[in-house]
Amino acid sequence: MSNRSDPANAVPASSPEPSAYLHDIPLDEAWSRLTRALQQAGLWGRLGVEGVDVAAALGRVTAEPVWARRSSPHYHGAAMDGYAVTATDTAEASERRPIDLRLGEETAYLDTGDALPDWADAVIPVEEVEPIQPGADRRSHAAIRVRRPTPPWSHVRPIGEDLVATELVLPAGQILRPVDLGALAAAGVTQVRVARRPSVAVIPTGSELVPASAPAAPGQIPEFNSIVLAAQVSDWGGTAERFEIVRDDFALIRSAVAGAAAKHDLILLNAGSSAGSEDFSAQIIAALGEVLVHGVAVRPGHPVVIGMLRRPEAPAGVEVEQRSERVPILGVPGFPVSAALTGEIFVEPLLARWTGRLPAEPPTLQGVLTRKVHSSAGDLEFLRVTVGRVSDRVVVAPLARGAGVLTSLVRADGLVHIPAGVQGLEAGERVTVHLYRTPTEVERTIVALGSHDLTLDLLAQFLAESGSRLTSANLGSLGGLIALSRGEAHLAGSHLLDPETGEFNVSYVDRYLPGLEVILIGLVGREQGLIHPPGNPKGVRGLADLVRPDVRFINRQRGSGTRLLLDYHLQAEGLDPASIHGYEREEYTHLTVAAAVASGRVDCALGIRAAAEALGLGFQPLFRERYDLVIPREHYESARLAPLLSVLETPAFRQAVAALPGYDIGPMGTVVATRPAAHPRVESGGK
Amino acid sequence: MSNRSDPANAVPASSPEPSAYLHDIPLDEAWSRLTRALQQAGLWGRLGVEGVDVAAALGRVTAEPVWARRSSPHYHGAAMDGYAVTATDTAEASERRPIDLRLGEETAYLDTGDALPDWADAVIPVEEVEPIQPGADRRSHAAIRVRRPTPPWSHVRPIGEDLVATELVLPAGQILRPVDLGALAAAGVTQVRVARRPSVAVIPTGSELVPASAPAAPGQIPEFNSIVLAAQVSDWGGTAERFEIVRDDFALIRSAVAGAAAKHDLILLNAGSSAGSEDFSAQIIAALGEVLVHGVAVRPGHPVVIGMLRRPEAPAGVEVEQRSERVPILGVPGFPVSAALTGEIFVEPLLARWTGRLPAEPPTLQGVLTRKVHSSAGDLEFLRVTVGRVSDRVVVAPLARGAGVLTSLVRADGLVHIPAGVQGLEAGERVTVHLYRTPTEVERTIVALGSHDLTLDLLAQFLAESGSRLTSANLGSLGGLIALSRGEAHLAGSHLLDPETGEFNVSYVDRYLPGLEVILIGLVGREQGLIHPPGNPKGVRGLADLVRPDVRFINRQRGSGTRLLLDYHLQAEGLDPASIHGYEREEYTHLTVAAAVASGRVDCALGIRAAAEALGLGFQPLFRERYDLVIPREHYESARLAPLLSVLETPAFRQAVAALPGYDIGPMGTVVATRPAAHPRVESGGK
Repeated sequence: MSNRSDPANAVPASSPEPSAYLHDIPLDEAWSRLTRALQQAGLWGRLGVEGVDVAAALGRVTAEPVWARRSSPHYHGAAMDGYAVTATDTAEASERRPIDLRLGEETAYLDTGDALPDWADAVIPVEEVEPIQPGADRRSHAAIRVRRPTPPWSHVRPIGEDLVATELVLPAGQILRPVDLGALAAAGVTQVRVARRPSVAVIPTGSELVPASAPAAPGQIPEFNSIVLAAQVSDWGGTAERFEIVRDDFALIRSAVAGAAAKHDLILLNAGSSAGSEDFSAQIIAALGEVLVHGVAVRPGHPVVIGMLRRPEAPAGVEVEQRSERVPILGVPGFPVSAALTGEIFVEPLLARWTGRLPAEPPTLQGVLTRKVHSSAGDLEFLRVTVGRVSDRVVVAPLARGAGVLTSLVRADGLVHIPAGVQGLEAGERVTVHLYRTPTEVERTIVALGSHDLTLDLLAQFLAESGSRLTSANLGSLGGLIALSRGEAHLAGSHLLDPETGEFNVSYVDRYLPGLEVILIGLVGREQGLIHPPGNPKGVRGLADLVRPDVRFINRQRGSGTRLLLDYHLQAEGLDPASIHGYEREEYTHLTVAAAVASGRVDCALGIRAAAEALGLGFQPLFRERYDLVIPREHYESARLAPLLSVLETPAFRQAVAALPGYDIGPMGTVVATRPAAHPRVESGGK
Repeated sequence: MSNRSDPANAVPASSPEPSAYLHDIPLDEAWSRLTRALQQAGLWGRLGVEGVDVAAALGRVTAEPVWARRSSPHYHGAAMDGYAVTATDTAEASERRPIDLRLGEETAYLDTGDALPDWADAVIPVEEVEPIQPGADRRSHAAIRVRRPTPPWSHVRPIGEDLVATELVLPAGQILRPVDLGALAAAGVTQVRVARRPSVAVIPTGSELVPASAPAAPGQIPEFNSIVLAAQVSDWGGTAERFEIVRDDFALIRSAVAGAAAKHDLILLNAGSSAGSEDFSAQIIAALGEVLVHGVAVRPGHPVVIGMLRRPEAPAGVEVEQRSERVPILGVPGFPVSAALTGEIFVEPLLARWTGRLPAEPPTLQGVLTRKVHSSAGDLEFLRVTVGRVSDRVVVAPLARGAGVLTSLVRADGLVHIPAGVQGLEAGERVTVHLYRTPTEVERTIVALGSHDLTLDLLAQFLAESGSRLTSANLGSLGGLIALSRGEAHLAGSHLLDPETGEFNVSYVDRYLPGLEVILIGLVGREQGLIHPPGNPKGVRGLADLVRPDVRFINRQRGSGTRLLLDYHLQAEGLDPASIHGYEREEYTHLTVAAAVASGRVDCALGIRAAAEALGLGFQPLFRERYDLVIPREHYESARLAPLLSVLETPAFRQAVAALPGYDIGPMGTVVATRPAAHPRVESGGK
């Protein structure tokens, strides 16, 4: 990303137009250009090798095969507490004709691990002998009596039982685990030869950037990509140096890059990699080396620049290890999702190569896509998805696709790769998910679709403590019922008012889920009303104020319970939606409409009290509504949902919900209705 | 483990006999005694919470739900480089009747990320406008021409698109990944509240122990359990302090434990937990607190002691955080496999609880056991296994079961749990494997059973670099053919001499694998001969020397190629096996017989030159033999084995093998025979 230009720092006149470079090529081609350049530069393998104390080598990668320097054990030892004997001495022993062996002459007591005397070749466990003329301890008996033969080498831990000197202990490329360290130490290895950690410079650029910890004015962007990229490098076995933010100034960025090139193995330059007016990355790379790639046909992330710099001399007085003559550099796109995925696509496999380990390979899972996804046919797209097993299907639900929505990556259970050349995927299509979680976690997941409510976040928190996972996605109340009808969720949150009856949810379940056996459980009662700025400057008191010409409104999306509530009451009050300013602008959550009010862009919105209070806004209560969980009986009775139903009875959970402004827990846990209505009376039993 | 006693340090006379305590209880019962005691002590949850800079919080565990402190983005911004407009101004625009908007009055140029001016509600991308009276840059045109309407809010990144202030960013109990750190920073969180790392003391005890880096005499045991335990603690989110080795002295150990209890959250006391004569753990725990459990019915690992100590005052001058009044302690068994598994069974879930994350849950895989396993019915056994997919079956092969064989844990792909009450498992039985590797790694594995050869280790190393995995287990040559007949391996290494023909392997394949289509590929030629001490003190020159009364011999196991070679030549020379001292003592590898010679226990053994040279021994060459790979055609032609066949052609691999003493690569890669013999002539083409 880049910002306002400063003419003094404009690109030199001789520089080519940046957009002349930007020409997306397929990922494979980009990767092979990089590979070839690295091979030519002698950088297609371990960068170096160092000796590290075994006790400090956890997580490092062996640089060469490790051979045992001593055997383990390195002597024949007693495998149990017992008496060392010569096996042939016991050959004739029997119950009737026991044999006595004199201590100090024919036998000797050994603790487990003691070395076998030279003359002995077996150990008889202490429990299997009788002391003769017993002494104060096991060493001071006169003799022991033996009633059966002992085979040679019994209860002896022989030399090399675990490892024989010169045997292979570990191959090269092993990421060292705790037990590996033990085996190395057992084999007499004190220092292990491991791959040097690649050293990576992370340089954030952009005049619009401010440190993430600082306050940010409109147009200023908190800089956190460098935190993500540095943490990725560290996770993948490198060490990262985060540079200070460099403003959009050709000379300053060039100088920072040149400085980094003098001492690091890789430079991640973020951002300035697209073709905007101050996107300098490509020019700077061209000035200091060579641009290999400008633009990769992947989404999110396509404005990636890949280059190879000449390594400058290290500044006088700076100690630098022997390094290559070339330094690869990645111009990483500025949008957070693009930046993080660029790390996964390019930096992880490069660090794997440089440390001699295999690239990370996430587990995969096959599943069924919940909805149609369009994709640009020219690009390989990485679609973020959530995953859960509903009945016998693994259900894969796409998340938000904006390159700026980092939370979509945080919430993702995995990625679906949509190859270049494919225009999109159909609902119901079978897809492979590259998981960020283990398949076990996916199996444990409860999928909630439909209307979102803060209570679901609290529920997720309480469930996590019992080892369950609740994922929820906001499709609106109607969207949730449709998802249930398609078998895409275990439950749906719903607060749909029936205009005919004034009752919530039940008639919608009859209409949208005919024939499906479902249970409606009350979750909470909530206040809905007008969210407005503090002090209510426009004096909005009721729906009638929405049609005033000076009042700007923002709406919720069709299919949401709040939208139905609004439309029901507008009709009841005889108000025309067309005369409401902003009726057509839709947002998807209570918090986003509240945010629109907070920003001053609109004067009011319909939503819940908690959203208003969360952002410090005023609230004019208008209605009360009931928010239910709609659960197919199949899931209601399953072991998977049992923890959820029991959380609803937990006092701590009920208190936490009751403390939310505008909420009451009256309906919580009540069976509102069962459908089809086998027992019609149950329906009136709820609320 | 314990060692020679020193009467001055004997257990006080009042101490109960240690064995009085040792009474194994089921793992569940042990764990619930520990749980109850921790609950009573207020230690059944996070130990503490601390604030950590987001940039330094990778891998830490959130201690509470994190709510967004600011929205991200916190202003409406341009989502692309383009011109800010009021959408209604463009409503009438068309190809025929374009609309011109004046810069500075009706429109303004924005770079991606710039804040939208107050009057604007949409952005038109720069590519979609025509400059009117173009200026030097995008900001200095007089006007732009627009040829179609722009919907409101198009190309605008609205406030809160990623996160709305007050929204849940991350739940409690989240292990922080790189993208999580980004989301926290985006949400205005500078310091994140995470669980304090539990602090764990690891105290090795035993007069027989010496530091792993020091030379060890017979009876002295290199101490490395503390390295494994400390690394486990670190892997699982704690910090470990490794104590110096404490010798078997009641007062010294008691003092070390009391010192550790003053400042740590958990003590791992290793070992002294069994009922041997200097196994003090239980008495010391009783003296400083309470023994909860002495003996858990698990194998390996049963002499576990669990206790709860009273926390002593911290010594004057030592700064200690506010800590609980009780300190749990584990007496960890001394055998390395027992120690490591005790960590997995007790320490990992405890650290999970103390940091508020879920316990680790390894992926599982169903497979078929290759051979019968007996198990003590009273114990839960953790059987170490290798796993691979052969044809359509996942094949699960048990590894060595000794508690001292740490390499069995290093080489294990996973564990099979054999529940208490089960006497064992049958060959062919379906079992669940708790994996140490990913299922993807298992899918990539080539399983080699049969005779082991050093070349297979080199092959594994070369394959690893191409992303394949070779696991090999030594069953002897005949064992390998039998494994192939059962579909348990992709290939078998074999060097079986046919006494009738003097040819290797082919007749055995005909006999043991009738009807199976197999390819025999030559791997190496090897020298076999007598391994003897340097200088050959007994002057062994040939097999005839083995029957001398002053020569002690050690044999290889039945079914091994070396054993067949010996028996063939003994018969040829008319020598009686019964007159060889040690003919009946069997070892399973070339290296272990060589180790027996090196230790002075025997005078000679039959084996390969490389084993003799590895241990600095002498070698009297007697025979040459050919070692082949026997590969069913189904696997020979599979993609899985292609990398292996191509490594055999690699010059670097051939050179590495040729450099091994006693090896020649003449046969390498040659098709020795195909079976059934469709083309009988191929057979003589090999060799």
